[in-house]
Amino acid sequence: MDKIERYSFVVEPFHVDFTGRLFMGVLGNHLLNAAGSHSHSRGWGIDQLNEAHYTWVLSRLSIELAEMPAQYERVEVETWVESVMKLFTERNFLIRNADDGRIYGYARSIWAMIDVATRQPANLLTLKDGDILKYVLTADEKPCPIDKFNARVRLAEPHAVEVPTHYSDVDINGHINSIKYIEHILDLFPRQQFEQHRVQRLDIAYKAESYYGDTLTLYHEAAAGNPAEQLVEIRKHVGSSDKPVGETVVQATIVWE
Amino acid sequence: MDKIERYSFVVEPFHVDFTGRLFMGVLGNHLLNAAGSHSHSRGWGIDQLNEAHYTWVLSRLSIELAEMPAQYERVEVETWVESVMKLFTERNFLIRNADDGRIYGYARSIWAMIDVATRQPANLLTLKDGDILKYVLTADEKPCPIDKFNARVRLAEPHAVEVPTHYSDVDINGHINSIKYIEHILDLFPRQQFEQHRVQRLDIAYKAESYYGDTLTLYHEAAAGNPAEQLVEIRKHVGSSDKPVGETVVQATIVWE
Repeated sequence: MDKIERYSFVVEPFHVDFTGRLFMGVLGNHLLNAAGSHSHSRGWGIDQLNEAHYTWVLSRLSIELAEMPAQYERVEVETWVESVMKLFTERNFLIRNADDGRIYGYARSIWAMIDVATRQPANLLTLKDGDILKYVLTADEKPCPIDKFNARVRLAEPHAVEVPTHYSDVDINGHINSIKYIEHILDLFPRQQFEQHRVQRLDIAYKAESYYGDTLTLYHEAAAGNPAEQLVEIRKHVGSSDKPVGETVVQATIVWE
Repeated sequence: MDKIERYSFVVEPFHVDFTGRLFMGVLGNHLLNAAGSHSHSRGWGIDQLNEAHYTWVLSRLSIELAEMPAQYERVEVETWVESVMKLFTERNFLIRNADDGRIYGYARSIWAMIDVATRQPANLLTLKDGDILKYVLTADEKPCPIDKFNARVRLAEPHAVEVPTHYSDVDINGHINSIKYIEHILDLFPRQQFEQHRVQRLDIAYKAESYYGDTLTLYHEAAAGNPAEQLVEIRKHVGSSDKPVGETVVQATIVWE
């Protein structure tokens, strides 16, 4: 079987922002669908793994774009596995226009496999007798010309915005869904920011789960010495707890062009 | 050309709620895509009309379901035009399982066509020499066995919840998008509501536009004599205005099973 999965979509009218470009969160959702399709076709899908009591957990996601697809454009995503370590695997993405082939950009992600019952990570090199290694395409074989995950989030005097979580934030596991964090982060910025700049790169690290009803506090500030880079840390407060500092669930950096 | 358009989708993992069923907002988005596809194939798409300086405006949407599609199910939507009046057209939807044919439910919608420049409604019976009449399937020819739009929203002592609007709420026209109102309405309810009940029917009337940065106030209460029916009215406050009563943008009713 081909090591690369190809996944296509059309940029739908309700999936573009007021500049006519695809929402970053919707792009993220398509990347996760492409990943799911790649895994499933090769016997490593969540539905197949669930029977064996394992599931994939997204740990890091980096997206870097020269251009964001526009309304009605047809997009093709390629995804492949760049490496497999004991506890993590690196999965990359290429995002191109399906008609003229121009490349919008690339993405990188890091995943762990956990045992659903014990929440302990599984050894990817021994699971299914190392079957996953059959699908590796090294960086030499299939380059992914963007930097690896890169988020140094150390906040000095951040702004803080409280965001309650609701029904629409929650996935089938009762967790706040990975994509919704991206939406909440971009919702920190005013209209002018999107009129004058576009997101060139997003790095997001998923550190812990949050749940329906948790209150999230989004701390954010510009990086020291680089106002075009924004640092974000999301902490959770269980229920209506007014404990000022909660557990960190997400760290992210955004580079504006 | 067939008067009925058929549109298919698969229920994606990130498009289901914590009960494993499709989010109502995502279903709404698919219905609007099906409508767009039907219109476009028949020369009445927004892209074609925009050249003629007209656009479709959704005025009413009613969705009634015996069952909400579940994760990974393949769904087929049929859509057709039931009637055309001078200023409005009725478009209906049938939603079924693409594999076993069982019917999840139906939807009804009412649309107007407006002149983009003047914001005045167009006469659908004379536009393009009445071409749209070729596509009408009357209620006798193609039944849609759910009640027509039905929302009597008269609030007595409602709860009020303020919802600021952000980047993710806004569509390509700079308006809060039709689907986001549905999400904000369902986000009014706590987890237990969705654990114990499901939405059997939603009626939503779009009365005015709201814009990026408007603050929405969602007023809601149970219908007199029917605690299973919830009434919702959304009013907008421009910017950070603290005027207590703003213009009504949306009225909706939800019937819980």
